[in-house]
Amino acid sequence: MKKPAGKPKLVRKHSKKAGLPPGTLVYVGDKEAEQVRITYLDYDEQNFREEQAKQIEECFALKTTPTVSWINIDGLSDVSLIEKLGKQYDLHSLILEDILHTGQRPKCEDSDKYIFVVLRMLFYDEESQAVESEQVSLIIGDSYVISFQERIGDVFDQIRDRIRNGKGRIRKEGADYLAYALIDAIVDSYFAILEKIGEKIESTEEELVGNPSEKTLHRIHAMKRQMILLRKSVWPLREVVSGLQRSESPIMRQTTEVYLRDVYDHTIQIIDTIESFRDMVSGMLDIYLSSISNKMNAVMKVLTIIATIFIPLTFVAGIYGMNFEHMPELKWKWGYAAVWVIMLSTAIAMVAYFRKKKWF
Amino acid sequence: MKKPAGKPKLVRKHSKKAGLPPGTLVYVGDKEAEQVRITYLDYDEQNFREEQAKQIEECFALKTTPTVSWINIDGLSDVSLIEKLGKQYDLHSLILEDILHTGQRPKCEDSDKYIFVVLRMLFYDEESQAVESEQVSLIIGDSYVISFQERIGDVFDQIRDRIRNGKGRIRKEGADYLAYALIDAIVDSYFAILEKIGEKIESTEEELVGNPSEKTLHRIHAMKRQMILLRKSVWPLREVVSGLQRSESPIMRQTTEVYLRDVYDHTIQIIDTIESFRDMVSGMLDIYLSSISNKMNAVMKVLTIIATIFIPLTFVAGIYGMNFEHMPELKWKWGYAAVWVIMLSTAIAMVAYFRKKKWF
Amino acid sequence: MKKPAGKPKLVRKHSKKAGLPPGTLVYVGDKEAEQVRITYLDYDEQNFREEQAKQIEECFALKTTPTVSWINIDGLSDVSLIEKLGKQYDLHSLILEDILHTGQRPKCEDSDKYIFVVLRMLFYDEESQAVESEQVSLIIGDSYVISFQERIGDVFDQIRDRIRNGKGRIRKEGADYLAYALIDAIVDSYFAILEKIGEKIESTEEELVGNPSEKTLHRIHAMKRQMILLRKSVWPLREVVSGLQRSESPIMRQTTEVYLRDVYDHTIQIIDTIESFRDMVSGMLDIYLSSISNKMNAVMKVLTIIATIFIPLTFVAGIYGMNFEHMPELKWKWGYAAVWVIMLSTAIAMVAYFRKKKWF
Amino acid sequence: MKKPAGKPKLVRKHSKKAGLPPGTLVYVGDKEAEQVRITYLDYDEQNFREEQAKQIEECFALKTTPTVSWINIDGLSDVSLIEKLGKQYDLHSLILEDILHTGQRPKCEDSDKYIFVVLRMLFYDEESQAVESEQVSLIIGDSYVISFQERIGDVFDQIRDRIRNGKGRIRKEGADYLAYALIDAIVDSYFAILEKIGEKIESTEEELVGNPSEKTLHRIHAMKRQMILLRKSVWPLREVVSGLQRSESPIMRQTTEVYLRDVYDHTIQIIDTIESFRDMVSGMLDIYLSSISNKMNAVMKVLTIIATIFIPLTFVAGIYGMNFEHMPELKWKWGYAAVWVIMLSTAIAMVAYFRKKKWF
Amino acid sequence: MKKPAGKPKLVRKHSKKAGLPPGTLVYVGDKEAEQVRITYLDYDEQNFREEQAKQIEECFALKTTPTVSWINIDGLSDVSLIEKLGKQYDLHSLILEDILHTGQRPKCEDSDKYIFVVLRMLFYDEESQAVESEQVSLIIGDSYVISFQERIGDVFDQIRDRIRNGKGRIRKEGADYLAYALIDAIVDSYFAILEKIGEKIESTEEELVGNPSEKTLHRIHAMKRQMILLRKSVWPLREVVSGLQRSESPIMRQTTEVYLRDVYDHTIQIIDTIESFRDMVSGMLDIYLSSISNKMNAVMKVLTIIATIFIPLTFVAGIYGMNFEHMPELKWKWGYAAVWVIMLSTAIAMVAYFRKKKWF
Repeated sequence: MKKPAGKPKLVRKHSKKAGLPPGTLVYVGDKEAEQVRITYLDYDEQNFREEQAKQIEECFALKTTPTVSWINIDGLSDVSLIEKLGKQYDLHSLILEDILHTGQRPKCEDSDKYIFVVLRMLFYDEESQAVESEQVSLIIGDSYVISFQERIGDVFDQIRDRIRNGKGRIRKEGADYLAYALIDAIVDSYFAILEKIGEKIESTEEELVGNPSEKTLHRIHAMKRQMILLRKSVWPLREVVSGLQRSESPIMRQTTEVYLRDVYDHTIQIIDTIESFRDMVSGMLDIYLSSISNKMNAVMKVLTIIATIFIPLTFVAGIYGMNFEHMPELKWKWGYAAVWVIMLSTAIAMVAYFRKKKWF
Repeated sequence: MKKPAGKPKLVRKHSKKAGLPPGTLVYVGDKEAEQVRITYLDYDEQNFREEQAKQIEECFALKTTPTVSWINIDGLSDVSLIEKLGKQYDLHSLILEDILHTGQRPKCEDSDKYIFVVLRMLFYDEESQAVESEQVSLIIGDSYVISFQERIGDVFDQIRDRIRNGKGRIRKEGADYLAYALIDAIVDSYFAILEKIGEKIESTEEELVGNPSEKTLHRIHAMKRQMILLRKSVWPLREVVSGLQRSESPIMRQTTEVYLRDVYDHTIQIIDTIESFRDMVSGMLDIYLSSISNKMNAVMKVLTIIATIFIPLTFVAGIYGMNFEHMPELKWKWGYAAVWVIMLSTAIAMVAYFRKKKWF
Repeated sequence: MKKPAGKPKLVRKHSKKAGLPPGTLVYVGDKEAEQVRITYLDYDEQNFREEQAKQIEECFALKTTPTVSWINIDGLSDVSLIEKLGKQYDLHSLILEDILHTGQRPKCEDSDKYIFVVLRMLFYDEESQAVESEQVSLIIGDSYVISFQERIGDVFDQIRDRIRNGKGRIRKEGADYLAYALIDAIVDSYFAILEKIGEKIESTEEELVGNPSEKTLHRIHAMKRQMILLRKSVWPLREVVSGLQRSESPIMRQTTEVYLRDVYDHTIQIIDTIESFRDMVSGMLDIYLSSISNKMNAVMKVLTIIATIFIPLTFVAGIYGMNFEHMPELKWKWGYAAVWVIMLSTAIAMVAYFRKKKWF
Repeated sequence: MKKPAGKPKLVRKHSKKAGLPPGTLVYVGDKEAEQVRITYLDYDEQNFREEQAKQIEECFALKTTPTVSWINIDGLSDVSLIEKLGKQYDLHSLILEDILHTGQRPKCEDSDKYIFVVLRMLFYDEESQAVESEQVSLIIGDSYVISFQERIGDVFDQIRDRIRNGKGRIRKEGADYLAYALIDAIVDSYFAILEKIGEKIESTEEELVGNPSEKTLHRIHAMKRQMILLRKSVWPLREVVSGLQRSESPIMRQTTEVYLRDVYDHTIQIIDTIESFRDMVSGMLDIYLSSISNKMNAVMKVLTIIATIFIPLTFVAGIYGMNFEHMPELKWKWGYAAVWVIMLSTAIAMVAYFRKKKWF
Repeated sequence: MKKPAGKPKLVRKHSKKAGLPPGTLVYVGDKEAEQVRITYLDYDEQNFREEQAKQIEECFALKTTPTVSWINIDGLSDVSLIEKLGKQYDLHSLILEDILHTGQRPKCEDSDKYIFVVLRMLFYDEESQAVESEQVSLIIGDSYVISFQERIGDVFDQIRDRIRNGKGRIRKEGADYLAYALIDAIVDSYFAILEKIGEKIESTEEELVGNPSEKTLHRIHAMKRQMILLRKSVWPLREVVSGLQRSESPIMRQTTEVYLRDVYDHTIQIIDTIESFRDMVSGMLDIYLSSISNKMNAVMKVLTIIATIFIPLTFVAGIYGMNFEHMPELKWKWGYAAVWVIMLSTAIAMVAYFRKKKWF
């Protein structure tokens, strides 16, 4: 059976690079499907420029300009490109390794010249009904943010629009605010996924009360599994955001902290919700198990009622089917009728008994 | 199937505003049903004034008066009103966002000029037998408290009476004491809900011992679900109250701290009770499962007793219903009577065996 | 069905006073049954006096005497009495409220002039087989201890005897030692209750191994419930005792600390034991469930053995009960005997098969 | 049913002394069986003396000698002896109480002149297949160690040999090293018990896979119970050893600390193993429950197959056993043979169906 | 039944040496199978030497050379060799004991002259489908690393290659970097094992959905057991790595810390994955139990349907098999046909009823 494309792997292939010296750059993801695309936005309060770079070298000048620049790289298959960028922006080889080795736990690392943040962007795949994830790595410098994504397509379009239109404060603020906006967009997108799962939980609950089937069980199991993976992505997020808040790097300015606190609150809220969902899903499993038992009980009752009524009657019929020569009842005129009376009254007594016992 | 109005949603629609710049004011609640109402109480030890404002601007003067003012806003659908108030009272745009975005986790944020507190007010809806919640946001300034509620109707009436009548210390104290009184009223109202749930637990327990049905199961499940939601509202409360206690803001005076400690004790007591309830409810589920098994066992026994008694007898009757030409027993004079004797003694032996095994 | 008197309520009525100003004194307990009784012991190394006061005012002088005084108040229905005492001994209105509002979580509060301690005294009601609890509040001053109890009857008789006889150190020590002695007596009395529950666990375990019935299940459930309530009383005790130990109040002298450490050790031991009991009780539930399954299995086997042996035989009998004209076997001389041989050998083969399968 | 002697009591009788003044010396154990035996070893690098004292007073001189002395007291029934020793060695009355009141939680208490340690020595009773425990109390002074045991027989023989033979460092080191050696011997003896339990777990696991019976269930339950009691003895040990390590008393010298770290590591290892065992045992219970269900399933299948095959056939036989006058089939020549053909083909079809369903 | 070689023992034999003085060197492993092999690599940026030593004394000179030396000892059966090495390198006797006593919990101990690290190297044994482990002990000095392994065969080959070829930074860095590289190789090898287990979980999940059998149960149980053992090896690793990071020893240089942080991240990731796996495996057990119940339900339904349809029909046939002389129906012309009509319509009604109930 082919594994559906959307099903997240439990463990990323790590063995591809086991034993290589640390900092060896090998991309562990799926190479073929990906196309590298480099785009950058360069802006301050007055000016705005948006370009799609053909060569990574086009972005090198942005490092020293006073304007805020956001370099976004979609696709990680071109290792040499990442390497060149790393050299220009003084990125430690272990950080480059983390960027390429997509499967990292969300984390936040302070360095003298930049802050390195790894996050997971989540998507709900309608087709496979599963949550998929993609690693987003951010390099936050004093006047630039570099973002690395595994695939084209993200949750940042509204931020791009805000920068283009100069809506909100984003054009007036620095790179740290841009970084905050990107993190906030990712965290906000989790709520949409939680809503999806919440709806699924509610529909499954209704199914559970109405007519639970083996499918319901597998749906519950799938939700449980998703929750486990979701949790793995979201729990470390708390540390990431509070790490940024407590960062002593001059890159993270005082004014941005209040915004990070807001993101932090959202993270806590997401974690709370996931924990509640977990509780609910495990409650649903209990209900499912009880309702199987209840159903089996109902089946058993039908069998028992039918068997208990007819087995004695069949016995009576069997008695008068015997071929003894001396069976006086067989010769009685009302024998046959009497047997019917006995049978019917037995049956009625049985039914009354079961009714009293509330079996049906 | 229509979802009953009172059933709390698992996740608030967050997606309505995903991607908008932070601080964009969009109200996420149900717009139609709500009517905005502004009331304010202004008092000191001697004076007292209570008004229903038509325009939010009427409340602007209260900011600087030395008297304590409590501005209460029921209904959040008028975003521009909130915005104006925010401008006048110097509220950060993220705080205005939190007020409008009802679905916040309870929290407490210190600012230079005010303390921002989010709480959840709980109601027990008798009809849907469910706990509903509403967000209450408080802005606590040095001489004013602004409270925001989603709907008209709250648990503050006794506080209003106390202010009107000058009963207790409330008229002699400042805005921090008023804030304490509001928080205390909310926390106290949780006890009433716990009593309701406690009664339900007890009645369900009696049902469980007496005559458990599938309905009992769904009642247990519903209680479990309510407990999960309740817990989500109450757990963060502890941090909120202890945050207020440890607040270094001059707004929270020393004298109020002892009262906050009292609220804190109540919060702990509520959390303890919820945890005990959770334990009890999960114990009830175990009992329910055991009693289904016990019932099935009883059904099985009835079937087994009946079948085990009559199946051998029917076999005997079948034997003598055979049409062999040479069956000497059929010709015996007492053959028929002997069969009856055999059958009855078999049946009696069986019954005795089951009695010995304590099957009935 | 009348609720048995001894069954502890899950939540104390708190709503009686919801919304009243803080510090409003309302007694929440059962008023009728109670009679207020005031007794006091006043002593130092040489002198000893024991009186039953008719008026609370008789105790007022004791506040300033250098001798140690223990004022004990049984019954809290006379609110004005408590109020007068509070005024004389400078008790904060919130503390008076906590004394009257019996249902408090055990706690310890430091004040300048006294330490306020709330504990729960537990009784094992033999009749209802349940653990009942009563709130004991202590006000520990520099030369006095005031104790408030809900009902007459306590675990302090041995302490009274020790004071009367001057046995042990109690007459040589101060009010803090008296307070320690009272707390120690309460904590010690928990051991007796744990012994009771331990015996019950052991007898239930034997029942479980011997002959478990539905009653066993309800006994297990009742023990679980008691453990939940017991835990709620005992867990906070740890904080109370360590709070007293770490208290910086001059009332708690250095020399008493070593005794408090002893109480602390006992508290930990009690908590440990409760946790072990919880584990054992939940293990018993698993055993119970397994033994129901085992029983059902046994019932099923009986049914299956009987049915599997006789159903084929009955079929064979049915064959030769058919009335076809051309059934050669019916005419054979040894047909009938042959059928018997076939039947018996089938039955024996079946029994052998089941024996091999170890079904009986 | 007599309770086997080896079965540990759930709670030690504490009530024997409830209410007595603290420090009242009453031995709570079993008095008759015990004989008090006092032995002491006195040694330094050159000298060595080992005696069995008849009177406790013989040991009094050892307090001040510069040589290291180890006084071991087996049996606690002679309270006056303990009292005299306590007076000579300045032991606090609460410590004497703890020594006599065997049932203490392991603990470590620092005092000016000595360190007081309570441990539990565990034995595996082969007969009752249960873990038994005995309290060992140590008083560690600057040049002496006093050990109190409930019964004769311990795990210290190898230490005695080492002292006698001067093997290892023990004769070169002080009292703290001796204390370490005693504690180490006790902790090491836990490993042997864990090995025993580990073997039992493995044999029970094999039984579980092979042929689980109700006995297996009770064995699992007994192991669970033992683990609960074991855990209660071992968990506090961690605090005891780390308490000794962090002790600021001059009695515990720097050089001994590295040895205590070793003991600490062992303690953690033991705790880890107990937790793993707990997990395994609870996993075994799940397996047991599943295998009962599987067995019942197998039983049900046998019944269903037999009943499903023969019930329709019996019905067919019943049809042609009817006595209608006009039943054309009965007169057909090949009627009887045709019925057989029908029956056999039905039976074969049924069997094929069940095979396809993989029922057997 | 022989225990398969690959099955890890639950507890290492500790009793072999119980009671011996601490620091007594006894190897607890399997002696026969092992051959001691000493190899060393000595290198700096320019030079490189690799030798297999015949005598341990050959390695003694390496202690003081400024080049980095890595002495690797495979096999621990030659205790005197370890002792000599210990004397030369000033190793504490307790550390030598820990090296020989393979079964240690992973740990990290700082000493003046070296850092001592214990790790567990894990292997997946394809044959027994189990995870095996081996203790690796590291002595990290300022210019040397000594590694002790139980058996020949490890995960360090790539590191050896890197040193030989001078690839990466390893030849430019000191002994601390070498130590990091060894630890990193061990931790990296855990990922491969997690991948194996992940694949097994996925295949078992598919089996569970498709056609669960009793084998599936035992596979789940085996995975659970492996996870428990894996967890015991991996959890302490976190402390080990963070201990190295926080080490104040001059041996661990600042520049290596960033690499250790990387290892730390991997450790957390491994722990996270193990926890997720545990959750999944316990979820699978629930599914398994439900599917047994579902199967039993299906079996019961087949039995009930067949029995419920045919038992009444057989009764009807029995009626007309009776031999009463006066049974008018028997003489009717269409009696037989009427009976067939009645029977068929009853059967059809039954089938319709079961269809309506969705039983098949």
